[in-house]
Amino acid sequence: MSLTVTVWNENVHEQEEPAVAERYPDGIHGAIADFLAEAGHDAQTATLQEPAHGLDAETVAETDVLVWWSHAANHEVDDEVADRVVDAVLDGMGFIPLHSGKNSKPFKRLMGTSCDIKYRHGGETERLWVVDPGHPIADGLDDHFEIPETEMYGEPYMVPEPDRLVFTSWFEGGEVFRSGCCYHRGRGDIFAFRPGHEEYPIFYQDEVQTVIENAVEWAAPNEGASATHGQSEPLEDYE
Amino acid sequence: MSLTVTVWNENVHEQEEPAVAERYPDGIHGAIADFLAEAGHDAQTATLQEPAHGLDAETVAETDVLVWWSHAANHEVDDEVADRVVDAVLDGMGFIPLHSGKNSKPFKRLMGTSCDIKYRHGGETERLWVVDPGHPIADGLDDHFEIPETEMYGEPYMVPEPDRLVFTSWFEGGEVFRSGCCYHRGRGDIFAFRPGHEEYPIFYQDEVQTVIENAVEWAAPNEGASATHGQSEPLEDYE
Amino acid sequence: MSLTVTVWNENVHEQEEPAVAERYPDGIHGAIADFLAEAGHDAQTATLQEPAHGLDAETVAETDVLVWWSHAANHEVDDEVADRVVDAVLDGMGFIPLHSGKNSKPFKRLMGTSCDIKYRHGGETERLWVVDPGHPIADGLDDHFEIPETEMYGEPYMVPEPDRLVFTSWFEGGEVFRSGCCYHRGRGDIFAFRPGHEEYPIFYQDEVQTVIENAVEWAAPNEGASATHGQSEPLEDYE
Amino acid sequence: MSLTVTVWNENVHEQEEPAVAERYPDGIHGAIADFLAEAGHDAQTATLQEPAHGLDAETVAETDVLVWWSHAANHEVDDEVADRVVDAVLDGMGFIPLHSGKNSKPFKRLMGTSCDIKYRHGGETERLWVVDPGHPIADGLDDHFEIPETEMYGEPYMVPEPDRLVFTSWFEGGEVFRSGCCYHRGRGDIFAFRPGHEEYPIFYQDEVQTVIENAVEWAAPNEGASATHGQSEPLEDYE
Repeated sequence: MSLTVTVWNENVHEQEEPAVAERYPDGIHGAIADFLAEAGHDAQTATLQEPAHGLDAETVAETDVLVWWSHAANHEVDDEVADRVVDAVLDGMGFIPLHSGKNSKPFKRLMGTSCDIKYRHGGETERLWVVDPGHPIADGLDDHFEIPETEMYGEPYMVPEPDRLVFTSWFEGGEVFRSGCCYHRGRGDIFAFRPGHEEYPIFYQDEVQTVIENAVEWAAPNEGASATHGQSEPLEDYE
Repeated sequence: MSLTVTVWNENVHEQEEPAVAERYPDGIHGAIADFLAEAGHDAQTATLQEPAHGLDAETVAETDVLVWWSHAANHEVDDEVADRVVDAVLDGMGFIPLHSGKNSKPFKRLMGTSCDIKYRHGGETERLWVVDPGHPIADGLDDHFEIPETEMYGEPYMVPEPDRLVFTSWFEGGEVFRSGCCYHRGRGDIFAFRPGHEEYPIFYQDEVQTVIENAVEWAAPNEGASATHGQSEPLEDYE
Repeated sequence: MSLTVTVWNENVHEQEEPAVAERYPDGIHGAIADFLAEAGHDAQTATLQEPAHGLDAETVAETDVLVWWSHAANHEVDDEVADRVVDAVLDGMGFIPLHSGKNSKPFKRLMGTSCDIKYRHGGETERLWVVDPGHPIADGLDDHFEIPETEMYGEPYMVPEPDRLVFTSWFEGGEVFRSGCCYHRGRGDIFAFRPGHEEYPIFYQDEVQTVIENAVEWAAPNEGASATHGQSEPLEDYE
Repeated sequence: MSLTVTVWNENVHEQEEPAVAERYPDGIHGAIADFLAEAGHDAQTATLQEPAHGLDAETVAETDVLVWWSHAANHEVDDEVADRVVDAVLDGMGFIPLHSGKNSKPFKRLMGTSCDIKYRHGGETERLWVVDPGHPIADGLDDHFEIPETEMYGEPYMVPEPDRLVFTSWFEGGEVFRSGCCYHRGRGDIFAFRPGHEEYPIFYQDEVQTVIENAVEWAAPNEGASATHGQSEPLEDYE
């Protein structure tokens, strides 16, 4: 299955922090698009700095799955662009917010909740446990994998109860987190995946790439049934 | 359990349509507040026309459960007031949108979806079937009840899959509808109940009053656990 | 995607009622296997009367998706065979009980509930509404379709809240029913589909064939993650 | 709210291991019944060794909520008694399996899955995080609490996706576990709570007592709607 995947990145840390620029010379978006292209997808990138953040109506319309990385500039995303993303998801586009993408306008609007968490920049180990081993997003994984150094996210994570919870993280500092959450909204599938702090080479890690590749396939749009709304004629006679 | 219940109504049809004014001389809000007061609650009303639509910060803060009727003026609700309601729900206030309240700003923001439906003004019969007979919102009902004449709402209803579905409606004209949907968002409980078109004496009907009384009790806030968010110290040592 | 699909049928009505035998000369199982084979699957059949009901360990092990029709002889299914089916589903085999298959031992064991319903043999019209138009089981359908004559099933249907509800039925006699229910149990996907009474040519109907073909693809096993259980060594040192 | 609570215990370790007998001189059942009685409930006990395991039809019929501790003797529970418990839950009785009660016949039958886990007897620390701070079972708790020494249970826990997940545990040895899972089956509410290994004084711990007291209130039966099943007359005329 070859999909049109747009990898969106705010692309701010890469501009401002040399260590991040060195780690991700083509940006986090470039690194993700690379392995998705290798997996056979038509992977393009878009960033905050482009006109319409690179998410004009045409681009969004042709996108099967939108992968989204954001952090420092979540509030700088234009409301109109955020609504365009939300509408596209409700119309069937897959949506995969990574890391602080859980604070992005599109994700928060789709969830309807604050998406608040605990966090700590400590370079500690995260161990992601597969709690739903039959889920296709876990295809090919062992029953857990580790990210040697990362930022911590901790519960309570203020999101709606996931439709299916795929991963739960253990942190060295003592917290847990629901780190892989599936949602269905409108016609679209959403997978919020926790890892991806810019200070660590997380998107070069095999298991992380496997999860994102699996999630892209899982979130691909399908045809579905037609749906009509608004004023409707009766299908049965009544007096 | 005596709760502080605020019954909010846009109160537009009552001002503009003599038949509605005659049916509900104290407004739909007045009719609902009446039977909730009889059930032992401290039931107050608020309407669109009041300052802050009657939903200033203090009123919302002291409200345990907000019952909401709206239709023609959904778009006239101030964004700030809508956000105040959303935040209060996330903080634990119960929320019971009735009828076209499913198109209200607070409900749509909490759901994150379009909430689109089919509809028809035809005065046809609706039969609400209890599909979850063990749910407390169904306490004291038979396995179905009828509304002799009403507007039709039809599927597909574009909301997130309910946490629990209590009622499904059969319509004389041939449609079905998920007419009693439970959601939990943040700390708050939400029950979206379909009936309540202003052209019919629906809020005087025993079963409808029973459902709303049950829903108010079900949606009452509880203490819950404390929750801290933001930067956090580790609970375990790590190097 | 070509799958190994086993279509199981108790094959009782076909033996005992000439009208059913005439309608389904190769049995209901034969009719279903025919259109699944045409859709490109390796579709085989199995019936109650065969040794181990045609569901010996080898057959079950090689089956990707098991389609199941049963009614009169639900209680005659051997407990060991029922457990073999349950275990295979928990291990990833798709399972699609049709019609009274909702009363089969495997389905009831997987659900843990009584699966009770209302019913009526009246030859009335059923209209199935798609309530989740983005679900792949609804691919290619209009927003509803009708079965001109069928048996009625009515709520409350005593099953766990479905993970996703795809169809809800309207019946001419006044009832509703959750007629397409998705469940995930262990590693397996289950889709309980209501239609299929033996007295009507339902399995020759285009929309019914489309739904079953879609459901077979949806329920196909995936690789998943490995999972180990039982006594486990610690992954972190502690004193 | 004063409820009739039956605390069932297999009462095997107390008979065979002096350390357990010394820790729980009245049995684990006695310790639990004590704090539930103090909370105002009519708390009675029942054990494996009694006729019908103390769960005869009359006792079960009058029980509002059944708290269940079992481990070594799960397989010794009579099938008929297990079915009686299952039927009572489906009919509205609350059910709270503790610790290895997740392997009991009634819980496994209600879930329909293997309920398999990882485990380790290591006396390590468990930290239970509240992931749903608005849930009434978490009333009065901080956002986490610790059990200083306990047995480890680890994912993947092979149960259906909980309706609501209240607690997730962090273990010193590196695992996580969904340690407080809510289910609704038939008319009954089920709360599976992980803690309670017999080798530690867990049932004397304040937070554990709070959770069990909250769960008992949460799982109390309600009136619900009437429900009829079986052959039904039409509610609408059709030809």
